[in-house]
Amino acid sequence: MYEEIIAEVRKKKPVIHCITNYVTVNDVANIVLACGASPVMADAPEDAADIASLADGLVLNLGTLNQSKLEAMLIAGRRANEKGIPIVLDPVGAGASQARTQAALRLLKELKIAVVRGNSSEIRTLALGHSGSRGVDAAFDDAVTEGSLEAAAAFAKDFSLASGAVVAMTGAIDVIAGSGRAAAIYNGSPLMRSITGAGCMLSGLTAAFAAAAPDRLFEAAASAVASMGICGELAHERMGGSDGNASFRNYLIDVVFNLKAAQIKELIKIKEL
Amino acid sequence: MYEEIIAEVRKKKPVIHCITNYVTVNDVANIVLACGASPVMADAPEDAADIASLADGLVLNLGTLNQSKLEAMLIAGRRANEKGIPIVLDPVGAGASQARTQAALRLLKELKIAVVRGNSSEIRTLALGHSGSRGVDAAFDDAVTEGSLEAAAAFAKDFSLASGAVVAMTGAIDVIAGSGRAAAIYNGSPLMRSITGAGCMLSGLTAAFAAAAPDRLFEAAASAVASMGICGELAHERMGGSDGNASFRNYLIDVVFNLKAAQIKELIKIKEL
Amino acid sequence: MYEEIIAEVRKKKPVIHCITNYVTVNDVANIVLACGASPVMADAPEDAADIASLADGLVLNLGTLNQSKLEAMLIAGRRANEKGIPIVLDPVGAGASQARTQAALRLLKELKIAVVRGNSSEIRTLALGHSGSRGVDAAFDDAVTEGSLEAAAAFAKDFSLASGAVVAMTGAIDVIAGSGRAAAIYNGSPLMRSITGAGCMLSGLTAAFAAAAPDRLFEAAASAVASMGICGELAHERMGGSDGNASFRNYLIDVVFNLKAAQIKELIKIKEL
Repeated sequence: MYEEIIAEVRKKKPVIHCITNYVTVNDVANIVLACGASPVMADAPEDAADIASLADGLVLNLGTLNQSKLEAMLIAGRRANEKGIPIVLDPVGAGASQARTQAALRLLKELKIAVVRGNSSEIRTLALGHSGSRGVDAAFDDAVTEGSLEAAAAFAKDFSLASGAVVAMTGAIDVIAGSGRAAAIYNGSPLMRSITGAGCMLSGLTAAFAAAAPDRLFEAAASAVASMGICGELAHERMGGSDGNASFRNYLIDVVFNLKAAQIKELIKIKEL
Repeated sequence: MYEEIIAEVRKKKPVIHCITNYVTVNDVANIVLACGASPVMADAPEDAADIASLADGLVLNLGTLNQSKLEAMLIAGRRANEKGIPIVLDPVGAGASQARTQAALRLLKELKIAVVRGNSSEIRTLALGHSGSRGVDAAFDDAVTEGSLEAAAAFAKDFSLASGAVVAMTGAIDVIAGSGRAAAIYNGSPLMRSITGAGCMLSGLTAAFAAAAPDRLFEAAASAVASMGICGELAHERMGGSDGNASFRNYLIDVVFNLKAAQIKELIKIKEL
Repeated sequence: MYEEIIAEVRKKKPVIHCITNYVTVNDVANIVLACGASPVMADAPEDAADIASLADGLVLNLGTLNQSKLEAMLIAGRRANEKGIPIVLDPVGAGASQARTQAALRLLKELKIAVVRGNSSEIRTLALGHSGSRGVDAAFDDAVTEGSLEAAAAFAKDFSLASGAVVAMTGAIDVIAGSGRAAAIYNGSPLMRSITGAGCMLSGLTAAFAAAAPDRLFEAAASAVASMGICGELAHERMGGSDGNASFRNYLIDVVFNLKAAQIKELIKIKEL
């Protein structure tokens, strides 16, 4: 079932309105295109409602946030809620600065969020209001391991219940929680931490998947997270001796472009919890 | 004759001031370098006049527009007009939001624009004040086909006459109109729609070509559009089985870097209308 | 000794706070990751102090500067000075606009800068208050040649003494001055001028090296400059017949990712002056 959603994306070609950071925006647009959706990047308050009106899904990514962008997020988010299209919130750097933490909490409170996609530090910050974040990467003591998996899944389920959003807490082991369910996903490559934007790209992919299957948000989020991990594995396999993180980034997007449902079905490593 | 202009670009190395969106800005800078020109990206109102004073050409690209950027465009545009250097207007997303449509119309009214480069939806929006735009991609009912080519060329000629600008309306078939002339260009690859920024890159290329041949704007625009299409074809040929849109983007810029006048002469598919 | 610092970077994994332009920001983040450090891009005034508090080094890059970014630079810079972590100033376009020149001079005056990294036009502008800059590339009459090397080194030494910063003036021949010492570095490839961002990436690399060896700023700056030049040479060697500047950019970052201390030791061309 997780392999079916990418076909929906390619059939429906959902328009994804991305309000995202300027660091990884090009990669996000290209990965949204790679999976078969159509990205529109627009972050001005005066644009936000019109663009959201054309969209089938919305990404709110807090990297390089500023006041104007936050205002645009609130306007676009309200329009998205009116239309009933899914919003993916990526709380980049929540916990790393007060401004980001407050903005993430405000968006979560004022908007109905379909999926929250972040690393464990960011998710914990949103759920608890504090974190041991080291910059925008997950703090080590927050990382989900086999030993802490049960506790992490319970934590994510509680946060999903409290927030009303599907929670996608990603790391070496990814935890998805929502609709009273939880799953662990074991796909991925350590090379994904060697590039900027793997998380941002995943949030774009998640919005495309959620927009194509808005009535199956848990499956859409799990499928997006697993697909990204699988693409990381396949991109890793393509690495030659001279390749480094720049090539890995290109391969990762290329693999998404060529990804087949059959590959997802064959390679997915998911465990319902 | 269309193949001659790239040699002028490489000889004169024009400085191209780009006020452009943050999504594709890196690709625009690299393609301007690839064709032999020298890009300067600067979008602050306090910078705009000084940088335009150093430039040989100016690109105004409306992607991720905001008020500050629009102000910078007006300042840089006035300076460019005083100096007599060509301005290329890329009305990204005109028709998709009121703010973008109004901004594009304002720039067209207050500045003397040398070339307007957009897809058919954007061009129609500018000419007519309305559009059936779907996000920032051309709406299908606007697309130029062999059947609608004559009407599209007449439309573009009228808009060129009304606006005083050469009109480059690009899509599966590109239409160039200006100086009482029109031409259709049949170069390109469908893969160009699989990456973000093909249009933005073309606008940068057009500005470089126009800056190198400011007294032959029709030829410069046609040459830039045909060259981009040819580079799309050559990049497409380089694609291997594992390649996707990330590799295509890299190949596209690489091909521009290596493009020879002889290739343009051999591969150009242009029909004077 | 110059080859030792990259091992420090990979061991300490310093967090580098980058306030940088949106043109090359993705490449800067990826090259900082490639050398083993951890980038955080954040340019909002409300974020600046919190993020700088988490960082081990700070880059202030003046490309696409605006008032908000300048304010963030001052806030982050003061916090960095309080903490005693090194600041690298990259005065992109100083001399090309009054706004950039004034901003660069203000940052140099109000903050304790560890390393100034720029081309000869930019460095001369900072030292003298005037320049023959052509856009953001070094003016030819400023370029350091074998004939002007002695004068350039004396100039850089004087500016280092006056500013209190190590000066890294890069071009075909790079000049490093500080702590009463000076050196010329002869590594590099002309292809580095065919991409956007080689200078910005070098400034990011310099901050990572300086953060890993804050008590050896001259060696850190010289090692970063030489390493970047060596990586340019190795990326150049990897170029195939179809490759252009897009591939070169990818190869350059890839080579940094794979760079070994032994390669630096073997390939460095440095002359103490």
